[in-house]
Amino acid sequence: SGLVLVKNPHLDLMEEDVLYHLDLGTKTHNLPAMFGDIKFVCVGGSPNRMRAFAQFMQRELGLAGDGEDVADICAGSDRYAMYRAGPVLSISHGMGIPSISIMLHELIKLLHHAKCRDVTIIRIGTSGGLGIEAGSVVITDTAVDSFFQPRFEQVVLDDVVVRSTELDKDLAEELLACSRDIPDFPTLIGHTMCTYDFYEGQGRLDGALCSFSSEKKLEYLRRAYDAGVRNIEMESTAFAALCGLCGLKGESCRFHLV
Amino acid sequence: SGLVLVKNPHLDLMEEDVLYHLDLGTKTHNLPAMFGDIKFVCVGGSPNRMRAFAQFMQRELGLAGDGEDVADICAGSDRYAMYRAGPVLSISHGMGIPSISIMLHELIKLLHHAKCRDVTIIRIGTSGGLGIEAGSVVITDTAVDSFFQPRFEQVVLDDVVVRSTELDKDLAEELLACSRDIPDFPTLIGHTMCTYDFYEGQGRLDGALCSFSSEKKLEYLRRAYDAGVRNIEMESTAFAALCGLCGLKGESCRFHLV
Repeated sequence: SGLVLVKNPHLDLMEEDVLYHLDLGTKTHNLPAMFGDIKFVCVGGSPNRMRAFAQFMQRELGLAGDGEDVADICAGSDRYAMYRAGPVLSISHGMGIPSISIMLHELIKLLHHAKCRDVTIIRIGTSGGLGIEAGSVVITDTAVDSFFQPRFEQVVLDDVVVRSTELDKDLAEELLACSRDIPDFPTLIGHTMCTYDFYEGQGRLDGALCSFSSEKKLEYLRRAYDAGVRNIEMESTAFAALCGLCGLKGESCRFHLV
Repeated sequence: SGLVLVKNPHLDLMEEDVLYHLDLGTKTHNLPAMFGDIKFVCVGGSPNRMRAFAQFMQRELGLAGDGEDVADICAGSDRYAMYRAGPVLSISHGMGIPSISIMLHELIKLLHHAKCRDVTIIRIGTSGGLGIEAGSVVITDTAVDSFFQPRFEQVVLDDVVVRSTELDKDLAEELLACSRDIPDFPTLIGHTMCTYDFYEGQGRLDGALCSFSSEKKLEYLRRAYDAGVRNIEMESTAFAALCGLCGLKGESCRFHLV
């Protein structure tokens, strides 16, 4: 049916669903009227960048206004920022798996309550590249964990549940085809490694703590490259797992800064 | 010596240390002049709340200004917000362990570069209470994970390192003593459980996914209570582990909303 799935039998029994961190709710807002026509959701870490992206989309789509007037739909909360440009929603998710998970739970319920159909979700942002040219864009085929495994371990109460982290292969190919029109950005499809930590987890030598040598770091990153990893960030496994389970066609697309 | 410790031999070899997510650095800023006299750091999730807290501290400390003129020291970055009021620094850390970890790595290096001495760090904010009166304040003695264990599992490259999550007992008692002057807020010392997920991880029945019954949730929360847990949040184990390792006298103090 193309509808977004929620997999929670308790939701139907609730009189009201409050999306706390988005400052929206089923009783306070007419979600189908506000969001029913959304077809694309783009998410990224930084609120300023997601605002700039919404302004960019307004210009690209030729929508009224000069792109300076996008309003934060979640202005009543400082947890996330949300903007829309026509059928495109642009939302920030902060840094790390727990932060993006809260946003995705509430976004998925929002799209469900709004009865949206055939929604594509794309995660955009920056990442650390691995053995690729600076300025490259990596389109993720599969998100992997720190052990290069295509899995997301979700702790549910005190059970560890393992979830798949594959992303939409057709969407990845579609995005790669789009990239052929933009010669300035080398674009490739590869695995994306997702860590829980920016410093010790990603082999950085400049954290407050660092117990490994630069040789050990290089050996680890070489193994990651050999396993197919082309970039490293902090949200992709949770993003892939949640989108996959809830029927959202999802893709992760990161720009590699130097 | 009371100095903040960094445990990273590579740092001394670096010509410049850029604190990326704070928009500060050793070459671009005179960190000892800006921060050398800091004695207290208070951290919490929301930027707006940490701004309000800095304004509150300005008034309480009788500092010049009406408390409305605090400036965001990290204004060049939208990852975190930082304010100061006299010897007190007030910083936001976003939601979840990865987000607070990035901030703490850079904060610890900041305090180290600024040669601060005898710094106390207190995490403040809201949490979910467990079997306690609404409006209570929980002062954490030990942070525990979803399995009620006093440990933080840090993935370093692909090694899992287990760290202690005890907090400063004397500071907890000092804070409890302060609370006796404020009769409006029931205050207690207890364990704080830290989860990686707000919905499935904390036994909430209102996420986009929920695979457990309300009975199973209650049974889990009852076991948590019996293990000494009095509130649940998403940062305390990483906070306790990092502060402990770097010689920061740390405490976590959460307000329980209904």
